[in-house]
Amino acid sequence: MHTFSRKLLTEWRKLEQPFADKTFVVAVSGGADSVGLLLALHELRKLKKLNLRFVAAHFNHDLRGDESDADAEFVKSLTVKLDFELALGKKKVASAGNLEQNARNARYDFLSETAENVHADGILTAHTLNDQAETFLHNLMRGSGLQGLGGMKPVTIPDSRFQIPDSGEQSGIRLVRPLLNWAMREDTENYCHLRGVEFRRDSMNEDLKFNRVRIRKILLPMLQDFNPKIIETLAQTATLLREENEFLDAEMRKINEKPQSTEETKNKGQRTKDEQESLPLKDLRDLFPSMRKRILRDWLKRRRGDLRSLDAKHFAAIENLIFSRKSGKTVELPNGEILLKNDGHLTFMKREG
Amino acid sequence: MHTFSRKLLTEWRKLEQPFADKTFVVAVSGGADSVGLLLALHELRKLKKLNLRFVAAHFNHDLRGDESDADAEFVKSLTVKLDFELALGKKKVASAGNLEQNARNARYDFLSETAENVHADGILTAHTLNDQAETFLHNLMRGSGLQGLGGMKPVTIPDSRFQIPDSGEQSGIRLVRPLLNWAMREDTENYCHLRGVEFRRDSMNEDLKFNRVRIRKILLPMLQDFNPKIIETLAQTATLLREENEFLDAEMRKINEKPQSTEETKNKGQRTKDEQESLPLKDLRDLFPSMRKRILRDWLKRRRGDLRSLDAKHFAAIENLIFSRKSGKTVELPNGEILLKNDGHLTFMKREG
Repeated sequence: MHTFSRKLLTEWRKLEQPFADKTFVVAVSGGADSVGLLLALHELRKLKKLNLRFVAAHFNHDLRGDESDADAEFVKSLTVKLDFELALGKKKVASAGNLEQNARNARYDFLSETAENVHADGILTAHTLNDQAETFLHNLMRGSGLQGLGGMKPVTIPDSRFQIPDSGEQSGIRLVRPLLNWAMREDTENYCHLRGVEFRRDSMNEDLKFNRVRIRKILLPMLQDFNPKIIETLAQTATLLREENEFLDAEMRKINEKPQSTEETKNKGQRTKDEQESLPLKDLRDLFPSMRKRILRDWLKRRRGDLRSLDAKHFAAIENLIFSRKSGKTVELPNGEILLKNDGHLTFMKREG
Repeated sequence: MHTFSRKLLTEWRKLEQPFADKTFVVAVSGGADSVGLLLALHELRKLKKLNLRFVAAHFNHDLRGDESDADAEFVKSLTVKLDFELALGKKKVASAGNLEQNARNARYDFLSETAENVHADGILTAHTLNDQAETFLHNLMRGSGLQGLGGMKPVTIPDSRFQIPDSGEQSGIRLVRPLLNWAMREDTENYCHLRGVEFRRDSMNEDLKFNRVRIRKILLPMLQDFNPKIIETLAQTATLLREENEFLDAEMRKINEKPQSTEETKNKGQRTKDEQESLPLKDLRDLFPSMRKRILRDWLKRRRGDLRSLDAKHFAAIENLIFSRKSGKTVELPNGEILLKNDGHLTFMKREG
């Protein structure tokens, strides 16, 4: 067994994934990472270490014309050669707005649909330590708190992205990244070479107009001058911060589940804080600033659906509102939303019309 | 009043520092930041906004020969001109080991002694948003968890660095950084220009052999290509992470203060976890991984004095020890220290001799 496959198997065990009788969709772009992953799964299947059904899935974003089609052809012949089922998707991605984001959304929609179609238990992607480090730097430079810096998880519990269409129910399909915790990009390249298999190089991965490419080709090599192991270091930091964030989210849920301190509890019944339209100010004031911010963010997210267009200034204004002595004051949020302080509570309201 | 001084006054209020009848030592290197701070204190004193006694303190590390002496001369004539008391210190800093660290230690020792001598209530340093961002990047690249990424605090509660010599008691001297939350380096330079006062430029601040200089002169300008407000963004991230860390430390103390879950509590009396030579494994296992790590770090720090020479591998081995089923196993730490798992407890021991 090649070292690369052995390491993949070890990680598979660590992530507590099944070894038999299940189906996984494998996202394959045709680049070194996903080809390396597919080759290792091929090896582990042949050695009967993983008795699973794998369905490769390739999505053609149709952004690079002939090159995109050639990628799809490449993946097709590779999967034929290695004897993998293949699902092909193709859709022109809207270039309006954030192109990278649009492409990612379209790709995950396709992967999700494919997983539904083949009754898969999970989707595998070939993200590496390098991807984790690049994501970390991307979020860091954009401006992130602890929530944003944790990066990708090796196993993601289903979220709204993987809902069964039109049902509102979650499909239970996991997203698994079995290379994320240990593989460097050069490991996947080396393993492809060892197996004598070519991989595709995406010309957009060389285009310096994309932040992600500049991070990889300019910023990270410079950071390596400071710390030769910068990729591993940043990926490790992301993991540590994600663990801290998970603890804090659990603490938040505990606080939200506690009954309110005020008299009104009796009238309002036993609804927990996060379900309420109003938050008692006293409870908020008693919290540590960072936990107060976390609870407010979570509560606002439930009221609004997301936190879009809220920035640090809004949260500073809310903080002031919570601690100012006058009652009846408000903070205006975007889109006609209002936070009202009244009767010892913070209430979320939306203007009519 | 100049905008710079007004902002300093606003921050002074926000940091809840006294406005009269107290003494503060002001660290003055002669660079733009500390000269800007001194000039603003001069302005606020003249306008009777701050009725405080300020004692400037300059430490000559004697690393740059005539240049170092000229810095001291410059600070001397500046304080005479502005009518500030001045304490001068001079000591050749050991170049063995980490020069920057040695210089910082010698400087803080001098500031601390000066503060004792003049019965000061606090020490002011002129660290800016830039310093905060640079510190963040420095720690990030070295490899840090949440504890290390929080950066400098605007007000530091006394720690062991500010102990009264030979008494073991803490002196109660605060370290206050009244520019840290709002001033950019260019603000201090501009304010010096506005006041028509020169400042010194340290040639070591141009020497690219120092990490800190490479961060400032090469890395940060490149990060500005990604985000023009990168300094503010990174400083803000450091603040957010510090707040999260403070909450987590408070949670840790709560957990440490809880009585133990095991039978032995009765025999051992009411000692809290952090005072114990042994930690009950069950309590550790029940914790979130990040909180378990935090409690272990804190406990080991108390046993050893610091966490020096402990790395991720040691903590991974301890984690394994906690969860493995066999008893009587050990993890060897550096310098003949041993963690022993026995009778449901983790015990710290040191080899004799």
